[in-house]
Amino acid sequence: MRLAIDAMGGDFGPRATVVGAARALLAHPRLEVRLFGRQAELEGVIETLPSSLTAVLPRLSLQHSPTTIAEAMKPSSALRAPRDSSLAMMLDCVAAGDADAAVSAGNTGALMALARRALGTVAGVPRPAISTAIPTRLGDRCYLLDLGANVEASAERLVDFALMGDVMAREVDGLPAPRVALLNVGVEGTKGTASVRQADAMLRRATDLDYRGFVEGDGIFSGDVDVVVCDGFVGNAVLKASEGLAKMLIDRVQQTFDAHWTSRLVGVLARPALRRLKSQLDPVRYNGASLLGLGGIVVKSHGGADDTGFAYAVSRAVQEVEQALPVRLASELGRRRSAIAAVASQGGGGAEACRPDEYNSER
Amino acid sequence: MRLAIDAMGGDFGPRATVVGAARALLAHPRLEVRLFGRQAELEGVIETLPSSLTAVLPRLSLQHSPTTIAEAMKPSSALRAPRDSSLAMMLDCVAAGDADAAVSAGNTGALMALARRALGTVAGVPRPAISTAIPTRLGDRCYLLDLGANVEASAERLVDFALMGDVMAREVDGLPAPRVALLNVGVEGTKGTASVRQADAMLRRATDLDYRGFVEGDGIFSGDVDVVVCDGFVGNAVLKASEGLAKMLIDRVQQTFDAHWTSRLVGVLARPALRRLKSQLDPVRYNGASLLGLGGIVVKSHGGADDTGFAYAVSRAVQEVEQALPVRLASELGRRRSAIAAVASQGGGGAEACRPDEYNSER
Repeated sequence: MRLAIDAMGGDFGPRATVVGAARALLAHPRLEVRLFGRQAELEGVIETLPSSLTAVLPRLSLQHSPTTIAEAMKPSSALRAPRDSSLAMMLDCVAAGDADAAVSAGNTGALMALARRALGTVAGVPRPAISTAIPTRLGDRCYLLDLGANVEASAERLVDFALMGDVMAREVDGLPAPRVALLNVGVEGTKGTASVRQADAMLRRATDLDYRGFVEGDGIFSGDVDVVVCDGFVGNAVLKASEGLAKMLIDRVQQTFDAHWTSRLVGVLARPALRRLKSQLDPVRYNGASLLGLGGIVVKSHGGADDTGFAYAVSRAVQEVEQALPVRLASELGRRRSAIAAVASQGGGGAEACRPDEYNSER
Repeated sequence: MRLAIDAMGGDFGPRATVVGAARALLAHPRLEVRLFGRQAELEGVIETLPSSLTAVLPRLSLQHSPTTIAEAMKPSSALRAPRDSSLAMMLDCVAAGDADAAVSAGNTGALMALARRALGTVAGVPRPAISTAIPTRLGDRCYLLDLGANVEASAERLVDFALMGDVMAREVDGLPAPRVALLNVGVEGTKGTASVRQADAMLRRATDLDYRGFVEGDGIFSGDVDVVVCDGFVGNAVLKASEGLAKMLIDRVQQTFDAHWTSRLVGVLARPALRRLKSQLDPVRYNGASLLGLGGIVVKSHGGADDTGFAYAVSRAVQEVEQALPVRLASELGRRRSAIAAVASQGGGGAEACRPDEYNSER
């Protein structure tokens, strides 16, 4: 298995990506990695690799790419930019069949646009959805999608997200019957926007999907469902707010222990327990968002991830390659969409659930 | 000052509302409260009030209301229900000028619908927005609105939310120049939905508003802004997700201390510090969501609030009465909307920021 990696993306650039790739190579003995970026910079980082990682060097190759896509570059500009950037060359490598998947910590919008150009989408998906796993109350994970690729989503798109999330949780995590839910402002059928209510009616017709109806925001963390579906605006706001809140709460725990002399002592004693907690909740462990619906595997690492986080994103890509995720997505999406449409044409109903309600309010 | 209180709403009914009202009366010596509900039930709770609270009884009156609005009742059904429910009678009392504000822990949708019927809206606001304060990193608060009354919001509505949030933070919290932001999937002007980008262009024209542009979800907790504006679907999802995450994290801190024998000991010692932390973060302290844009003051207590939480919601209403919030909202909304429109007609620009962007993606 060979992965193509854009080594220039992310807040820490090659320092995180090259070391992270080396860590992933150590964890996956049959993996090969091709790094794309400015050769001199990459070589500089490779020279400083700790001796514990030098054993992987025979499986690590470099491909010089003269330019980079800046973090602030707009997708439309990225599409007009020369194709010799680390991002574009990485994707072209996958498109040419020279690598099985791509991993980047760079500009998400540019990655999305260039990936769509290089790899196309499957099963008539107009634009890929972004999904990541979120830790839940019971120590499990829940996939949330879309996270920002589709700031608005029709009912049909929400249904696609649900089916893709189901396939991903089934194939990559090995869940026999992932529990899938739609995010809404209440659990009653009369709540929410027209597209959410219509998607609910459509998903109720899906026979081989464990569809659980609506959940509210707290349902993401409850452990009661495995996939939560929403449009990209909502998903992005929820994900970013959760990151901000988690950071604030963990800081507050620390401050609480630092504030009083009695608790300062306790704080010193409590440090190992808090460290364990932080590592359990660390978003780094869940790093690696999947671009679903493309004709190839592309994983986006968080821009702020360090080398350990980047290694998780690489491992995510390895799992998706092992399960041939795009092939499964394409076939399942086609088959199940037709099944839903067939039930609908037989009068499967559900349209009555779409009536507007004057006061869709809930707090 | 006299408040009307629906004593039958919320998960705990009169046990929380009657005791909470008594606590609020103790805190506000010039306050009078009229409770609406089934007289026998209310009297039952009053008889068991602790002696520390009996001094307030002369300022507490009861008004029998034979029916209640169930939590699951749809707003449209609530509008057709007889007007002798505790919720409807409370609102009619405010509408008749016999009370200065209403507080309920009951059905939000019904409260919204009946409040709009009884009190009307001001300044052409089609439907009130719901707003609550959220604790931030620096120990301050940030107002988030809308929280679910408007599942979709045009640019004009988002502008109204921004102006109302500004007035509330100015009047109720005494901030000289609240920092106001729009929630979006990125901070660049090309990101987000058309309505968010158009609202951004309009708010940039507002001269007497400290408008800070876009924030992402983590900006709610950063302490960098005082008011964050979004549509009700997004706000509701973010608020509920935050509640779920905070609960999960605090449980995890406890579990971490309970899991190992070394940390169990530390856990016992750490208990007072953790209690302090919990109380700092307790959403109860921030209980009381304001229905903004009505012709009167209505505060919604969280359904799960206990008597302490309900007392906070009552205090919230007291603050809003002291500042004559609806009058201020009506005049400011009218004045500032015209100012924004005037700048627009003079070619204040901003329309160029509304062009669609093919890839509004961001993670």
